[in-house]
Amino acid sequence: MKDQQLMWNESSRETLLESPIFSVRSIHRHSSDGREGDFICLDAPDWVTVVPLLSGDQGCDQGPQFIMVEQFRHGSGKVTFEFPAGTIDPGEDPQRAAERELLEETGYTAGSLIPLGNVSPNPAFMNNRVHVFLANDLIWHKEQELDENEQIHTHLEPVDRVRQQMGTGAYDNGVMVIALQFFSRYKEKLGADRIRTGE
Amino acid sequence: MKDQQLMWNESSRETLLESPIFSVRSIHRHSSDGREGDFICLDAPDWVTVVPLLSGDQGCDQGPQFIMVEQFRHGSGKVTFEFPAGTIDPGEDPQRAAERELLEETGYTAGSLIPLGNVSPNPAFMNNRVHVFLANDLIWHKEQELDENEQIHTHLEPVDRVRQQMGTGAYDNGVMVIALQFFSRYKEKLGADRIRTGE
Repeated sequence: MKDQQLMWNESSRETLLESPIFSVRSIHRHSSDGREGDFICLDAPDWVTVVPLLSGDQGCDQGPQFIMVEQFRHGSGKVTFEFPAGTIDPGEDPQRAAERELLEETGYTAGSLIPLGNVSPNPAFMNNRVHVFLANDLIWHKEQELDENEQIHTHLEPVDRVRQQMGTGAYDNGVMVIALQFFSRYKEKLGADRIRTGE
Repeated sequence: MKDQQLMWNESSRETLLESPIFSVRSIHRHSSDGREGDFICLDAPDWVTVVPLLSGDQGCDQGPQFIMVEQFRHGSGKVTFEFPAGTIDPGEDPQRAAERELLEETGYTAGSLIPLGNVSPNPAFMNNRVHVFLANDLIWHKEQELDENEQIHTHLEPVDRVRQQMGTGAYDNGVMVIALQFFSRYKEKLGADRIRTGE
């Protein structure tokens, strides 16, 4: 098998740093052609991102809209507009984490949560996955329940504007771009299936 | 201004770890409503990802295809299929880095390189940006020039298959999903402009 030639095997690992959001490891690996080296990796929990969609028939005269959260981000040092998202707790089901983050950050519950896909956010140096869910049939349930250092404003944003603006101004979160791509794929497939079945 | 309420201001920072691919900092910040805390951030160089597109009229009977690289990734511990990508050198122009990575990893040069967008890959804890370029009019130029620990196979992959498979099997790189979303947006805008101008 071709990809077996490309595999590197681990012989040892060392923890360089433990932090509340990840650990940094140095992993010593050997290639099948005799090379070896130490590689820096982040050992991080899985993440979840929720795409909360209000369809045009839920009283949005601007067409379909996303419920988005506005918050300060400590990596970029900027306030961003993005989808509700967070870390999956140890042993927690990704879908349960999606429900939880949606409710905590926006106060909404979803009549249906559809898994859109999951991917390694950065396989070059991270070992975790991000799971993306579409939240439909949204109902406002209660006030936000934020973590100690979370301050979040919620907004409705037209779907088209978010797609057009992504990567500019406050629309500046790559994990959200991942979620948008999974969302686009789902909508295209839904459209193709409707044409195919004559719905 | 609403987002001023959400800003946190830095009062001090400490370096916890220096590594070849990033540094880990602990940043002490204060919010406008009197909260404070230490936040872990990765200080990393900017990245570039190149979407190398062979159009249907460049001899691909399966329609448009991407040139993709197959390599072992030390974070996920897996072999992935992805776009050519890498780190932008200090002071290097992102477009120049795109040309360089494309040539080094695939041996191709592009007749045109179009900037598709850039975004913070993860503003929650990273301070860098990823720049995405579309590479058109590709010409095979020479053999790969790989870094010491790089082993890369190149493949042609149909555009539709990559979009459909993303997040499964070896199609498992979130930064590539970001690039796909920017690529999709560009192609849609191009299509809309052609309809608008009657081309």
